[in-house]
Amino acid sequence: MTDPIFESSDSLRSSRPLKYAKSVTFEGVLELECGGRLPAVTVTYETYGRLNPQRDNAVLICHALSGDSHVAQHDPQDEPGWWDIAVGPGKPIDTDRYFVICPNVLGGCRGTTGPNSPHPDTGRPYGPEFPLITIDDVVRVQRQLMDHLGIERLLAVIGGSMGGHMALRWATLYPDRMAGTVALATSPRLTSQALAFDVVGRNAILQDPDYRGGRYYDGPPGPRIGLAIARMLGHITYLSREAMMRKFDADRLKPRDVATQFETKFSVGSYLAYQGDRFGERFDPNSYITLSMAMDLFDMGSHLEELTTALQPARCRWLVLSFSSDWLFPPFQSQQIVGALLAGRKSVSYCNVASSCGHDAFLLPDELDSYGTMLAGFLDNLNGGTGGRDDIDVRQHPPNSIFFDPQRLDYDSLAELIPAGASVLDLGCGNGGLLSLLRQRGHTRLMGIELNEAAVGDCVRRGLDVLQADLNQGLAIFADGQFDVVLLSQTLQTVMDVPKVIREMLRVGRRGIVSFPNLGYHKLREQLARHGHAPLVALGGGSRWYDTPNVRFLTIADFEDFCRDHQITIHERVALDTQAGQRVVEEPNRNADLAIMVLSREAEPGEREKAPAASRYTATVVPPEEPEPDPNAD
Amino acid sequence: MTDPIFESSDSLRSSRPLKYAKSVTFEGVLELECGGRLPAVTVTYETYGRLNPQRDNAVLICHALSGDSHVAQHDPQDEPGWWDIAVGPGKPIDTDRYFVICPNVLGGCRGTTGPNSPHPDTGRPYGPEFPLITIDDVVRVQRQLMDHLGIERLLAVIGGSMGGHMALRWATLYPDRMAGTVALATSPRLTSQALAFDVVGRNAILQDPDYRGGRYYDGPPGPRIGLAIARMLGHITYLSREAMMRKFDADRLKPRDVATQFETKFSVGSYLAYQGDRFGERFDPNSYITLSMAMDLFDMGSHLEELTTALQPARCRWLVLSFSSDWLFPPFQSQQIVGALLAGRKSVSYCNVASSCGHDAFLLPDELDSYGTMLAGFLDNLNGGTGGRDDIDVRQHPPNSIFFDPQRLDYDSLAELIPAGASVLDLGCGNGGLLSLLRQRGHTRLMGIELNEAAVGDCVRRGLDVLQADLNQGLAIFADGQFDVVLLSQTLQTVMDVPKVIREMLRVGRRGIVSFPNLGYHKLREQLARHGHAPLVALGGGSRWYDTPNVRFLTIADFEDFCRDHQITIHERVALDTQAGQRVVEEPNRNADLAIMVLSREAEPGEREKAPAASRYTATVVPPEEPEPDPNAD
Repeated sequence: MTDPIFESSDSLRSSRPLKYAKSVTFEGVLELECGGRLPAVTVTYETYGRLNPQRDNAVLICHALSGDSHVAQHDPQDEPGWWDIAVGPGKPIDTDRYFVICPNVLGGCRGTTGPNSPHPDTGRPYGPEFPLITIDDVVRVQRQLMDHLGIERLLAVIGGSMGGHMALRWATLYPDRMAGTVALATSPRLTSQALAFDVVGRNAILQDPDYRGGRYYDGPPGPRIGLAIARMLGHITYLSREAMMRKFDADRLKPRDVATQFETKFSVGSYLAYQGDRFGERFDPNSYITLSMAMDLFDMGSHLEELTTALQPARCRWLVLSFSSDWLFPPFQSQQIVGALLAGRKSVSYCNVASSCGHDAFLLPDELDSYGTMLAGFLDNLNGGTGGRDDIDVRQHPPNSIFFDPQRLDYDSLAELIPAGASVLDLGCGNGGLLSLLRQRGHTRLMGIELNEAAVGDCVRRGLDVLQADLNQGLAIFADGQFDVVLLSQTLQTVMDVPKVIREMLRVGRRGIVSFPNLGYHKLREQLARHGHAPLVALGGGSRWYDTPNVRFLTIADFEDFCRDHQITIHERVALDTQAGQRVVEEPNRNADLAIMVLSREAEPGEREKAPAASRYTATVVPPEEPEPDPNAD
Repeated sequence: MTDPIFESSDSLRSSRPLKYAKSVTFEGVLELECGGRLPAVTVTYETYGRLNPQRDNAVLICHALSGDSHVAQHDPQDEPGWWDIAVGPGKPIDTDRYFVICPNVLGGCRGTTGPNSPHPDTGRPYGPEFPLITIDDVVRVQRQLMDHLGIERLLAVIGGSMGGHMALRWATLYPDRMAGTVALATSPRLTSQALAFDVVGRNAILQDPDYRGGRYYDGPPGPRIGLAIARMLGHITYLSREAMMRKFDADRLKPRDVATQFETKFSVGSYLAYQGDRFGERFDPNSYITLSMAMDLFDMGSHLEELTTALQPARCRWLVLSFSSDWLFPPFQSQQIVGALLAGRKSVSYCNVASSCGHDAFLLPDELDSYGTMLAGFLDNLNGGTGGRDDIDVRQHPPNSIFFDPQRLDYDSLAELIPAGASVLDLGCGNGGLLSLLRQRGHTRLMGIELNEAAVGDCVRRGLDVLQADLNQGLAIFADGQFDVVLLSQTLQTVMDVPKVIREMLRVGRRGIVSFPNLGYHKLREQLARHGHAPLVALGGGSRWYDTPNVRFLTIADFEDFCRDHQITIHERVALDTQAGQRVVEEPNRNADLAIMVLSREAEPGEREKAPAASRYTATVVPPEEPEPDPNAD
C-alpha cells in the first residue's frame, strides 16, 4: 500500500518478531498497585548505542499505547521503528552519544508480560485474569530492568502520550535515578473528553460477541471488530482536523480498494477500515483494554496544589513539549505540569510547538526541526550542569525593540541593578542573551519567557530554563513571589495590557525591573513638534509607525504617573542616553532615550533612606503637574 | 434521573406518542435523487401559532439528526420540546407572531416515512430496503408539506446542524418560496473529521450481530449495542472539551448508578452508557444509518467557487450563526458559507457566537441572550424590507475612539464623500450608526464588519447586514471590487497591520475612505514637546497611554508618506478641527485633529483634473521632506 493517505504514525508496524529484541525474566511475585499480583514478569526490550564507562549516558524511552520496544531501526535492513525520526546516529536522541533503552510495557503484547502471556502455572494466556495494572506498575518493572542492566542513574527518561505518563512517574518515584525528564504531548491525567473516547473504544471491544469474556485465544479471530472500532476511533483522535482535511478532503468520495468488512463509502472510511484491520493483526484486544484502562486511571492531580505535591519529589531537569494542534492531550495540560513544576521550584523548559498534525505530531517529521533541536539541546546540557552554550549569535533573534541595536547596550546597566545571587525571571528573554550574562555573573536560578519558538530553542540549547508564553496572557503559571527579580527589558512598549503585566510581574517577583524607551527624549519631541511626524523613526531600527512591534508609547513622566496612580514604589531609577553612551541625571525625561526602573508593589519600611541617592534622579525633575521648560523657547 | 450531569440537549426526548402531531400522506411515487423510489410518503409535523390572513408569517424549522417534529411544548403540561428555549410565545421565534411548522424528516423514525415505516405493498417495515436518500429528498418532501398547508412563501426556513443543511438547500431549490434563511451551527459539507466519526458510528451498528442485515424489526432488541456505541461517540462530538470538563472532571471516578451493560468505571462512562441506552429506546438504527449517510453525502462544495455557484440561486436574506467552541461544525465552515454568499452578492449577516458549549450550544440556553436576539431581530426585519429599526442608542457601544464623543461628528463629512447610491462596506461599524445614516440617505447595498457581539446584534436588529470579524484577520472573505466604497472610520489607529488592512480595503472596494485622528494636531504636539507626556490624553475620551485601544499613532504627513510609498492615490482630503467644528484648509497637519481621505490603489486617468479643488488642501502644505515651521518659534 503506497497510497500516501494510508501513511500513518504507526501503520508500518508489523507483527513480525523483533529481531534485535532481548528479554529478561524477573522471578518472584510482583505486587501490583491495585492489589493484583503477577507471579513473574518478563520484559522485552531493545537497546541502541553503548553504555559509556561512567555509565551516565543511558536514556530510557517509554512508548505510547500501541508502541513496542522497536523504537528505531538497528540497521538499514531492519524494519522501521516507531520513532526513527528522533532516535539514531546523529539524530536528536543520538545513539552515537547515548545508550538508548526501550522496553515493551507491562500489560503490552509484544514480548513483555501482558494478557496474552502464558500464566506460569497453567501455560495458558492470562486473558481476562490479567490483573488491573497502573502506570506506576509499568514504571516499577522498567526500574527492575534498569537494575538488571546495571544503570544506577539515567541521563534521561523520555516519553510521549502514555509514555509521558511514565516519564512523569519515573521522575517522582525514582528522583535519584535520573538527571532529566522529557515529557512530550502528555498530561497529568486524561481530559474527560479523551477518557470518554477510551470508554467508547473499550465498550466496542467488550461488547463484541467474539470477545467471549476475554477468553478468545483458543478460537480466532477474537474481537477483531470491536478492536478495529476502537482503533478507528483512536485514529481520529490522533490526527488534527487540519491533518484530516489534508489527507481526505480532496477525494472524499473515492475510497481506496481495501479488503475489509467495514463500510468503505468514503476515502476516510477506507483509511480507517485499513488502520483498524491492520491493528487487529498485531495488537491484543486484552492489552488494549489493560493499557487504556491504566492510562484512564492515571491521575497526578487536577488542581495545581495536588499536582505540585505529586511532582514535589522530582529532582531532575525537565523539558515539557506540547503540540499546538493536539486536542487529545491539549497544550493546557502540559502547561498544568509546567505550572506545578514551577510551583515546586523545579528546573523546567517548555514549548508549545506550532504544529498542524495533532497528537501524532511528536511521531512525525513535520515539526522535528523545531522540537528535535530542543530535545537534542536539552540532553546535551544534562550532564554539563548549568554550563550551557554561549556561542549562540545574539543577533539571530533580535528583541522587539526599535531603539537599540541587537547588542542590547542596556544589559550591563540592568545586570548591575540585580542583587548578587538573586533569582531572576526575564520576560521576553529572546534567545537568552541577558540570562547568559547573569549566569556568567553567578546567578543560578534563572528563567526566561519568550514567544518565539526558535528563540526558545536557542535558550534550551544554551541550557537555560525557558517557557514559551505570550506575556499578554499574563503570568498565571507562576505563584506569588516566586522570583527575587522579574525583568521586563524593552518589552513593556510591545504589551497591550500594561497594568496587567506590571501587576503580574510584581506579584511573581519581589522586585520588578522595567526598561523602556522614553518618548520624551528630545529628538523624539522634535520629530513631532518640528517635523510633524510620529516620533518613531528618529532612532535606529528602521521600523515605521505602521509596522513597529510597539503598541504603547510613554515618557518617563507618564510611567512615573502610572506608578503613583497604581501604588507602585519606584526604588531605583536609571536614565540612559544610549546614543551618547552615558547615564543621565539632569532632566531625564528630556535627555534620556532609555529608562530603567526598579519597582515593587509597596514601599518597604525605611525604603526612602535605603535607596542609594546616586541612582535616583531627584523627584523634582519631572513634576507631574507643572509643565517642563519649553525645549524650543530659547 | 435528576443528576445535573445527566442533563443533555435531548436526553428529555421520549418515545411516547406525540400528542399534537398531525400527519399527511402524499400518494404517488417519490423519485429520489440517488435513483431510489418511494411509493408514497407520510409526513408527521407539528404547528404552533396561527397563519395570518396574508399567509406570510410561516416559519419552517428543520430538525437535526436525532430531533423530531416536537420542537416545543404546546402547553405547560405537554412534554418538553427540543428547542423550547427558542420557540414559543414571546420567545425569539415568537409563536404569537409566527406560524411555526416543524416536520419530522424523511428517513426519520418519528412518524414521517422512514426505514421503520411499513412498505405499502407488504405492510412490513422497509428496513434495509429503504432507499438511499439525500438532504434534497428531505427538502422536497418538506416542500410538498408547504404546498399541502397552502403556504406559497415562507417567512423563513430555520435549521441547525443537519437542519442547517436543509435550510441551505431550501434557499437554493425554492428561492421564491422564502424571505429568509437562518443557518445555525452548520456547514457546506461535513469536515473529514466529522465524517470519520459518522463512519465509525455506522460501522458499530452495521457490525452488531443483532443488526441482522437491517431486518431486526421482528425480533427485538435489534442492534442496541451498536446504536448505543454510535450515540456515545456522537455525544462526545456534540460537547466541547470545556463542557465535558465542567460536567465530569470534579468526580470522574464516581460513576452514577445506571442499569446498563456498558462499562461504568468513570462518571463520564455512566453518562455515555445512559445516553446510549436511552437513545436506543426511541431511535431506529436504520434511521440513524439513513440520516447520517444523507448528512455525510451532503456537499455544496469545498471551494469558494463551487459553493458560490451552488448558492447562486438563493434570493432570500441570510442569518448565519456559528458557535465558537463547536468543533463538529466548526466556525470556519459557516464562514465558508458566508464567503460564498458575499461572492454571490447576497444579503447576509453572520456572527460567531462566543460559547463554551460546543455543537450543542444552539440547543442550550447559555448563549440564547446573544443569538436569540439576533434570531428575533432578523425575523423581525424580514417582512419590513430594509426599513429596519433606528431606535438603537448610538451611545450604547461607543466606537474605539478616544478623540470624539459618541455622536461621531464626522459622520456627515464621511457621508458627503460617498457617491449617491454607492454600495458601502463599513469596517468597524459599531452598532451601525453610520450605516443607518447612509440608509436614510438612500444607499441600499450596505454592509458592516464589527467584532463586538452585542454591537453585531444591534446591527441585526436594525436590519443591517453585518459580519462579525476581526479586521486584523483581513478581508479574505470578500472578493475583489465587491463594494464601491469601503470605509474605515476612526479604526485605522486600532489596527496592528495597517498595510494589510489598507491593501485589503482597496482590493475589496473601488475606493477606500479612511478617517483617523491626527497626531500632528497642535495640542498633541504641545502635550509632548512642552509637557513631556505622551500625546494621548489631551482630547476627550479619558483613555490613557496604557489602556487606549489605539496601537498606531500617525500624523497626516505620515499617512501621506505611507500612501506615496505604497502607490496609493489620494483622491480627496478633508481635514477637520472637530473641537472648533470646522474644516481646515491651512496647515492641516497642525490644525486638524481628524483627517478623512478618499483612496484608491491607482490613479484613474484624468484623476487630477476630476478632483474638486475645494476638497483638497494643496500638496505643498505638508511637504514630505522639508520641516514644518516650528510651532513654538514665535
